[in-house]
Formats: sequence, C-alpha cells, structure tokens
Amino acid sequence: MAVNLPIPNLAELYPVSGLRIGVTEAGIRKASRKDLSILLIDKGASVAGVFTQNRFCAAPVQLCRAHLASGIGIRAMLINTGNANAGTGEDGRVRALGTCAALARKLGVLPEEVLPFSTGVIMESLPVERIEAGLDGALADASEDNWLRAAEAIMTTDTQPKAFGTQVLIDGVLVSITGISKGAGMIRPNMATMLGFMATDACVSQTVIQQLATELAEGSFNRVTVDGDTSTNDSFMVIATNKASHRVIDSLDSAPGHALKAAMLGVAQKLAQAIVRDGEGATKFITVKVEGGKSRAECRQVAYAIAHSPLVKTAFFASDPNLGRILAAVGYAGILDLDQAGIDLYLDDVLVATQGGRHPSYLEEDGQRVMKQSEIAVRVVLGRGAAVDTVWTCDLSHDYVSINADYRS
Amino acid sequence: MAVNLPIPNLAELYPVSGLRIGVTEAGIRKASRKDLSILLIDKGASVAGVFTQNRFCAAPVQLCRAHLASGIGIRAMLINTGNANAGTGEDGRVRALGTCAALARKLGVLPEEVLPFSTGVIMESLPVERIEAGLDGALADASEDNWLRAAEAIMTTDTQPKAFGTQVLIDGVLVSITGISKGAGMIRPNMATMLGFMATDACVSQTVIQQLATELAEGSFNRVTVDGDTSTNDSFMVIATNKASHRVIDSLDSAPGHALKAAMLGVAQKLAQAIVRDGEGATKFITVKVEGGKSRAECRQVAYAIAHSPLVKTAFFASDPNLGRILAAVGYAGILDLDQAGIDLYLDDVLVATQGGRHPSYLEEDGQRVMKQSEIAVRVVLGRGAAVDTVWTCDLSHDYVSINADYRS
Repeated sequence: MAVNLPIPNLAELYPVSGLRIGVTEAGIRKASRKDLSILLIDKGASVAGVFTQNRFCAAPVQLCRAHLASGIGIRAMLINTGNANAGTGEDGRVRALGTCAALARKLGVLPEEVLPFSTGVIMESLPVERIEAGLDGALADASEDNWLRAAEAIMTTDTQPKAFGTQVLIDGVLVSITGISKGAGMIRPNMATMLGFMATDACVSQTVIQQLATELAEGSFNRVTVDGDTSTNDSFMVIATNKASHRVIDSLDSAPGHALKAAMLGVAQKLAQAIVRDGEGATKFITVKVEGGKSRAECRQVAYAIAHSPLVKTAFFASDPNLGRILAAVGYAGILDLDQAGIDLYLDDVLVATQGGRHPSYLEEDGQRVMKQSEIAVRVVLGRGAAVDTVWTCDLSHDYVSINADYRS
Repeated sequence: MAVNLPIPNLAELYPVSGLRIGVTEAGIRKASRKDLSILLIDKGASVAGVFTQNRFCAAPVQLCRAHLASGIGIRAMLINTGNANAGTGEDGRVRALGTCAALARKLGVLPEEVLPFSTGVIMESLPVERIEAGLDGALADASEDNWLRAAEAIMTTDTQPKAFGTQVLIDGVLVSITGISKGAGMIRPNMATMLGFMATDACVSQTVIQQLATELAEGSFNRVTVDGDTSTNDSFMVIATNKASHRVIDSLDSAPGHALKAAMLGVAQKLAQAIVRDGEGATKFITVKVEGGKSRAECRQVAYAIAHSPLVKTAFFASDPNLGRILAAVGYAGILDLDQAGIDLYLDDVLVATQGGRHPSYLEEDGQRVMKQSEIAVRVVLGRGAAVDTVWTCDLSHDYVSINADYRS
C-alpha cells in the first residue's frame, strides 16, 4: 500500500563504527515478531534528541529528557514496539526505568546511561519482565550490520521498514550516515517523528550535536503529517560515534559542518518522507509548497491547513480535482489579513486558480490528469512576501479508517 | 445514517408573522430537486447575521456583509443550493449581485435590500440565468407555512431536513421562533454554520439583533464540528419581524431579553446539533465537555483537539475504547503548561484515567459498553481552574470517505 516507498537497499545501510545493534523477539504484544532492539554505543559518542511537544508525553520520553539532561554520556538505547508506555502515569515511569536499569546492569553502566523508547498502544502497562527476559537475546544478536533488522523491529502499522544511508567526505575523510524510522499513524510530529534514529561515525562535539538534531528535525520530520495527531512518543535521536579521523566539528557554520548537515538532512528527509509514503491507508504522496508568504511560519500554517483537511485528503484519494477545497483550506488557515485576490494555486505545472477564482485557461481534464498521479505537488503562491515552506502528506482513504478502527483488535 | 436526528415536527414549525417563504426547482445543478428558496420579509424587521471567518469567503458572503453594513432594511433573502459561488473571484460577485438585482426588480426594492446565500460545489460559475428563471416559481410558492420545504431545499449532502421551533412568552405575549439549517460536511463553523436561518415575530431593536445573532452562534453553531473544515459560505441569519405586540427589546440584559435568548438558543442548539447528527457518515453523536480549565478558551481548545482527532473519531466509529488517543489529543491541544498528573478522563459516568494514567478501577468492559452507544459524552477535567466548555461532534467512518470521494460525481 505504501506510495513509491523504496525497499531498503542493504548496500546503502552503512555500518557506523562504534555502534552495534541487536534485535530479538520478546513477545511484548504478539508472538513471533521482532519487537525489541538495543543500540550499543561505544564510550565517547555525542548524542542528542528532539522529542514530542505533546503534554501527555510518554514515560520513556520523560526519562530520555532527564537522562540526556544529566550530562552523562549515553551508552545504550532500548526500543520496544507493541506498547507505547504512554498515559501510564508514575507506574509507567517506574517500569521504563526498570528496563533501563536491567540493561545497564548487564552492560556495567549506570541506568542514566540508557535511553528507553516505546511505541504501540497507549494506556497499557509495559510488560517489564518480557523486556528483561529478551535482553540476553538482543545482546547476543548485536552487530554493526543490523540496521535493517532494527528498522523491522520498530514497525507498528508500518507496511515496510524504513532505512536509508549515505556517505560523505568530511575534511577528506569518508564518513558514514545511516538512519531508520517508523510511522505510520498518529503522525504530525511536533519536534520529531514517532521514532527516528540516525547515526554517523563523524566527529561532532556534544554542544553541536543538539543543534544538529534540532535542525535536522526541522527540515524533515517536522515537515510531514499523516493525520495531524501528534504522538505521545515522538523521538528523533542523532548519534555521532566520533570514530572518524577528521577534526571534530565544533560549529555547524563551517565547511565540514555544512557538508555533514546537508548529507544527514538528505537521509532525514528520506526517512521522514518514508513515513508519509507508508502513512496509514496512503495511496498518494503529496508535496504542499507554499510560496510568497510574509514568513516561513505563515507558509507552514497554510501548508498544514491543506495537509490536514479531510476534504482535501479525500479528494486526492478519489483523484477528484475538487480544488476549491484547497482554496477553502487556505482561507481558514488563520492568516487574518489574507487577500484572496492575490493567490495563485498550481497543481504540478497546471495553474488552477488566480485572483480568487478559477484561471480562465484552466481545464478540468488537466487537473484530473495530475490528480490521478501517485505523486502530486500542490503549490500555493500567497503574493505577500518572499518566504517559502514545504510540507509532505498523503491522502485519506477507506484503509485509514479500517486500520484505525481495527488497530487494537 | 443520521444519529438520532428527529424528523421535523410540522406542529413545531411555527409560521412567523411577517415572513413568507417560497421554494422552487430551478435546475441549478440537478433536475427535479428543490434548490432555490426565497425569504420575503415585511418592512420594519430587524436582521443580523454572522459569517464565516474563512478568508476565501464566498461572493454571497461578501455581498451579505456589504448589504447589511449599508444600514438599509433587509427585505428578502435568496438561497440556492448546488453551487457555492466560492473561489469565483470578481465574476462571482457580479453574478451574486445579478441575482439580488433580479429579485429586487420583481419586489420593487433595491438590490441592497436582498441578501444572497449559496451552498454546494466550490469554484464553479453560478448559473445566474437558471436562478433568475426560477424566481417567479418561488414567488408564487411564497407562504408563511413553508419552513419544512425550505429546510429541504437548502440540503446538500444532508440526509434529512433540519427544522425546529418553539414558542415563548415575552411580556405576556406569546411569540414564535422557527429555524432551519443544513450541513453536512466542511463543518467547523467559525462564527456560524454552512447555512442557518432563524426567525421570530418578537420585537427586537436593530442594535440588539446583531448581539443576539453573535451570542446565539457562540452557544450553538460555534460549538460543533464534523471534519474541522471551516466552510467558505458559513452564514447564520437571525430575523425579528417585530410583529408581536410586546414592547421592543432594546437590551439582552433584561427579563424579556433573557427569555427570548434562552428560547432562541434552545432552537439554535438543536439546529447546530442536527448538523452533527447528520454529519457526513456519522454513526455516533459525541459531546465533548472540558471542565476545570483556566479559561473557556483553553477548554474549547482541548475539546476541539479531541473532536478533530481522526484517531479518536475512528475509535468511536469502531466502538473501540482505545482511550489513550483522547489523552494524546489533550496533550497536543496546545496548553504548554498542562500537567498530565492533574487530568481526569470520563466516558459518560466511567472514570477512565486519572493522574496521567489508567484509573485502577477502570475496566475495559465499562469503556466498551459506553463506546457502543450512539450517544457518548467525553468529559475531561483539567484541574487548573473553574472554566467549562462543550463541543459536539461525530465519528469518522468509511462513509465519510465515500461521501467526500464521490461528492462531485
């Protein structure tokens, strides 16, 4: 069902020196599926994350924030699917900490050196004993080559694993970048996606790594939406193992900083777009670009109004060029002094509307042709300024309703 | 498909002295269906309206605002379905004015004394000639008893007409109140619904009528949502024909003012709720009440986050007590200093969650029992203050997708 989502290319999923990954079947919710992953990080890595802005953030998100804030180096990440450990109150925090402590004991590190991540059903107790029982299997499995298995092990309603990688020269040294992510519903990240992990062997100082994580999320995961539901568990982690032999990057505003960020952003955007391509019930991948705004923020506001409109999304599903629905969404996006006479609407290269109404040369058959494609670009020109922003989304289909009506059964 | 929506009771649809209604089949979009209505108002009435805040507001909305602002008394309203005359630019305004002028000529009044209303497909040209050709038939049909026929003639994807009325004593004089409305998609009114018309023969000054219209909309149409899409055409009109023999109400802050507003609010709420009960694909009617907020505004913000969440709405459709989705929506509603530990969640009388997690005595079967009902109350207690607000909504079903994927075909 995913829309032009590439199957992971093993040759591109570069091992990252200093990072080993182990996966196992812990039976957290269902038997016989990979549901527990650990990331083992050599001492000396730089680690940063961005997390959901949902005030009902999950227990593991609360612990991640606390452990990162403690300033201790991070040595492991523990990821389970099948249970989000969200809406679980104080008991949820105790359980998440229990799993960190169990892994920490086996590794000979402190519980604060372990970050926990959970995804799955909300408001159910985390089965700590099953996770603990799975740790030995996951540790035995650990290797640098396990990216694809981890991408599979973090899936929930995803239909395909999401993993991408690249390599880039930094100061003449070839460094590797690899990442994985998962969706596929409750997706309107507000700081990050449900779960995304990226690692590089490049050398990045701890002060720079947080800025890098934030900027990568801004340009990728914070630009996608499936259903407008901001998850309780969104977490996006960036790990630099600092194993490469180039000089440490201590500012993003440098040639090596630019090169690394550009390469990592390419991977982050693929990971973020992969979540939309595999969005629940998605049949179309839609790029919404809003230009000519007074600020990036207002462009994004308009783009999200379009990307969240159930009427726009069902029209895409039906390949119906009922494009007035897009104008309506532009109109209610919240720009109070918007002048409809200044707005142009394009569907790919087709100029649909101008000066508040249908363009004289617009033909329904041209709109129809674009709407039938699996990849569609909506372009709105506001005519108010020079700012631009882009959001990626998918359509709303019968399968979205089916998947979410049946999710727990 | 409508959820417990009462069929209009003719005995309750009181004629309003000074107001006649005519309906005809003008063939605006489809043959053999009532699609054109006129409301003929005796001289001396007080008229006010509230309109969509959508910046892509339709040509008829722009004309309504201008004609009301001119201060001229309103003598007629002209309502068509089948075409929204929105997203039609300057040409749309010319066409809407043309229909006003045609009716004005027949009535011997000025074009500014006529208000136009359109609902239907966006971004198509209004067929002025068909509307003009239908005027004589509508005029010949005019009578005080035509409320139900008008309620039928303004329907689009509505499955049932929506009409309610009541009578109330004002200063010892019995006055009548009758109203009609239509939905059923692109419903998240922001000042009013797609179309709603209420009339009373009570005597209300022109200064008070606008305040009354605004307060009625606030307590009714501005509390409902089907899909979160604010229409380009939302209009809610209140007419006082001033025919009753009581003293004119020149302040809402008076005993007669309170009595009239309470009676009219009762009808307005029924009209607004009827739109939700007949929401596209609706199978459940859901009342979302948020208590204990610092302000009404933040209560409403939380209520709308719940009422717009596709995940919450599909869970209601499936009768699945996957109630963590409600907590997630509370969490992303935008209250930045919200403390999840202070929140209680009830489903009808069932306490589901407390202190950020599942209540110890909550049983899935109790949640399941409530979720299977056709009328469900969600109650969220924020524990931050004394403010309360309520929003009415429906679930998200396969039929919503079908209806909106097929709307134009």
